[in-house]
Amino acid sequence: MKEMAKAAEIAGEWASTSPETRAGVITGVADALDAAGPFLIEIADAETRLGTERLTGELARTTFQLRRLAAESGLSYDVRIDRADPSWPPGPRPDLRRYRTAVGPVLVFAASNFPFAFSVAGGDTASAWAAGCPVVVKAHPGHPELSRRTASVIEEALGSWSAILGLVEGEAAGVEALRHPAIAAAAFTGSVAGGLALARIAADRPVPIPFHGELGSVNPVIVLPGAAEANAGELAAGYAGSLTLGNGQFCTNPGLVFAPSSGPFADLVAERLREIPAAPFLNDRIESGFEAGADRLASVPGVREVVRGAGARLFEIDLEDFVPEVAEECFGPLGVVVRYSRLPDVLPVLSALPGQLTTTVHALPEEAADVEALRPVLADRSGRILWGGWPTGVAVTAAMQHGGPFPATTSPATTSVGTAAVERFLRPVSYQDWPSHLLPEPLRDDNPWGVPQRFS
Amino acid sequence: MKEMAKAAEIAGEWASTSPETRAGVITGVADALDAAGPFLIEIADAETRLGTERLTGELARTTFQLRRLAAESGLSYDVRIDRADPSWPPGPRPDLRRYRTAVGPVLVFAASNFPFAFSVAGGDTASAWAAGCPVVVKAHPGHPELSRRTASVIEEALGSWSAILGLVEGEAAGVEALRHPAIAAAAFTGSVAGGLALARIAADRPVPIPFHGELGSVNPVIVLPGAAEANAGELAAGYAGSLTLGNGQFCTNPGLVFAPSSGPFADLVAERLREIPAAPFLNDRIESGFEAGADRLASVPGVREVVRGAGARLFEIDLEDFVPEVAEECFGPLGVVVRYSRLPDVLPVLSALPGQLTTTVHALPEEAADVEALRPVLADRSGRILWGGWPTGVAVTAAMQHGGPFPATTSPATTSVGTAAVERFLRPVSYQDWPSHLLPEPLRDDNPWGVPQRFS
Repeated sequence: MKEMAKAAEIAGEWASTSPETRAGVITGVADALDAAGPFLIEIADAETRLGTERLTGELARTTFQLRRLAAESGLSYDVRIDRADPSWPPGPRPDLRRYRTAVGPVLVFAASNFPFAFSVAGGDTASAWAAGCPVVVKAHPGHPELSRRTASVIEEALGSWSAILGLVEGEAAGVEALRHPAIAAAAFTGSVAGGLALARIAADRPVPIPFHGELGSVNPVIVLPGAAEANAGELAAGYAGSLTLGNGQFCTNPGLVFAPSSGPFADLVAERLREIPAAPFLNDRIESGFEAGADRLASVPGVREVVRGAGARLFEIDLEDFVPEVAEECFGPLGVVVRYSRLPDVLPVLSALPGQLTTTVHALPEEAADVEALRPVLADRSGRILWGGWPTGVAVTAAMQHGGPFPATTSPATTSVGTAAVERFLRPVSYQDWPSHLLPEPLRDDNPWGVPQRFS
Repeated sequence: MKEMAKAAEIAGEWASTSPETRAGVITGVADALDAAGPFLIEIADAETRLGTERLTGELARTTFQLRRLAAESGLSYDVRIDRADPSWPPGPRPDLRRYRTAVGPVLVFAASNFPFAFSVAGGDTASAWAAGCPVVVKAHPGHPELSRRTASVIEEALGSWSAILGLVEGEAAGVEALRHPAIAAAAFTGSVAGGLALARIAADRPVPIPFHGELGSVNPVIVLPGAAEANAGELAAGYAGSLTLGNGQFCTNPGLVFAPSSGPFADLVAERLREIPAAPFLNDRIESGFEAGADRLASVPGVREVVRGAGARLFEIDLEDFVPEVAEECFGPLGVVVRYSRLPDVLPVLSALPGQLTTTVHALPEEAADVEALRPVLADRSGRILWGGWPTGVAVTAAMQHGGPFPATTSPATTSVGTAAVERFLRPVSYQDWPSHLLPEPLRDDNPWGVPQRFS
């Protein structure tokens, strides 16, 4: 495959660019995408039905992300320098200098639900580039024309660096790329079934490679009794808004909410949702998958359907009837309210949930003791824990964690949003007793790129 | 399995210990092992034939390692704090605080060749403990009594924390432990075949877990023409010493050396090796595996056997006859000299090698230009690159990288020696808009443990 050959050929040169050069190239891509915005957004809207307002915001997020990762690419070397020490126990130690360098060409499987932010120039591509890795993107079939046009805009912006982006289309080409010896790591955002199948292929290669998959999550919300009573209206409106944002097609969509049996919260959620008009799905396949999943849920014993036919489907179940099927992700605006009588009974159910991207607690300050009991369970089961608010917003910052225990992701030690996303595509190398002037720049005594160095 | 239940039960409490408490517990183990040294070394010698001198040094290394990782356990949280910022583009950002916390109970498969340093209280256990994870060790059958006695000494030293160490024995128990839902990650040091079989089991679990395997490596050494001519005697003696250290039973054993066709280096290596007396192998199974591997190599076309019957077996082959079988690890004191006429011809052979823990260059300062051409290839193929010296010594420091591309390891982004080894057993969690006093200590505004915090 010519995309792989191109990526392999440029990998060494791109990996050894200075942070300044690398940032300049990536920022140039962001500028070109912004300039092509109106044109690209029109194509995106035709292919995804997401609407120009959302797509305009998503493109802004995407180019912000490129610029942010570009600007911080010099911070990810994690340089550690041990000076030689003849008295080091239990034996003399040499001069050792360790940094993290690019792992090699990265294969990115684009997502359906973010035609910009998790696609050709999305977070995976941005972080792989920032790590110094060329990228081959497997386009998502949900927006093929947009993928091609985006790739063209980028190719032109990259100029002499155009080999750091390749685009392949179709399932067979994606699998062929994943098996290609030039590929050193892969990133994926999508379904559990699809992600697991690809993870297996990555593990079964003659040379297995890391596969960073962001799969399924229902992002449980726990509303404590005090908060439910004091703020029922506000919380119900907030929940209904988060559940239907982007027609529920977000990995951080809060599909599961634990709320007290008594009190108006659940009824108010239903009221709010009935007011929200139906929105188009990304495509017919996702819509029919959503309806089938919701119908399956409706047939689970104890599950009651509360809202149907508006912009969401809402179900209820009593905590004592809870079964694992209730916590299976149904991609789209589907919510399940789990009604509990006693908060302590919720803990074992939360503990037994599969891994999640996020969990959210709504509590009054005077419920702090109850939250303290919940916290270790939430930390065990998810990558990001919110006190108040809603999980659908995912800021691109240094402290963002968008990942979590399986099946939220296949690599829970990593994040796919935020500047730490770059760490997925780095590999440490130590130089021992190497003459300073022949070392890679980040390890040299004169530190020509001015990167952070830690001495010990 | 009761070891798993114990580990699962104590996991939360151990994960939330302060660095001071954790360091005290781990240091107590080191003290107890030092005190039990003579007793343990005697058992170790009887089971491994490694000799008291080597074992005394290895135990000192092991307890040093425990103390070092204990002392640095407060440095691995990687705390990142983003203060709330309403003007953050492309939308207001919340207060986000991210740190790395323990992944959960870790299963450690002990190695045959380091009865202390990669066994019950070895590097994997030390780094998992320092990360805040309880450990279950699958004892190596090569030193069962030592494993039990070491575990007893540790159990007594741990006192009320005794549940952070469990010991299981036998292949079936190891596999059962690897499949156990309480286990969150595994570490292994051993053969490619054994490691791949276990990696597959880890990947096939209903909840797949990270498997950090350190498998095979032949640690290529490249002697450049100038160095070979100027320092032939010294290099030959150094190589022979490194090749036969510990009877060649080190993962960093330099099994492959590229040297100029002309010049006395190869002959001098043979001379030195003939002077080294045969040493006992760890056990009969390893000895017969070594002889079988060496015999297989002897039958490869173009391979000439140069030394046999002393403390090593040495082979030679001309570069043009090189085939991949020559680079297969044969555990023990087996060296292959690959004779080259032109250095540039060595590059494509190095590029095609499987991943290695280390590569080593011997060159004169005036050969710097040639080394610069080699460097990207060596960095692509290995985790640690030496200029001069020999790879068998592996210092326990911050900048050590003991890992490399597959099959050197199954997770090339990690190290199993040095303080960065702790990173294998950590998982990031972000707290969003959480009241400061209810956060885990490392994330609090008042930073009660005084850990490094990075603000942005």
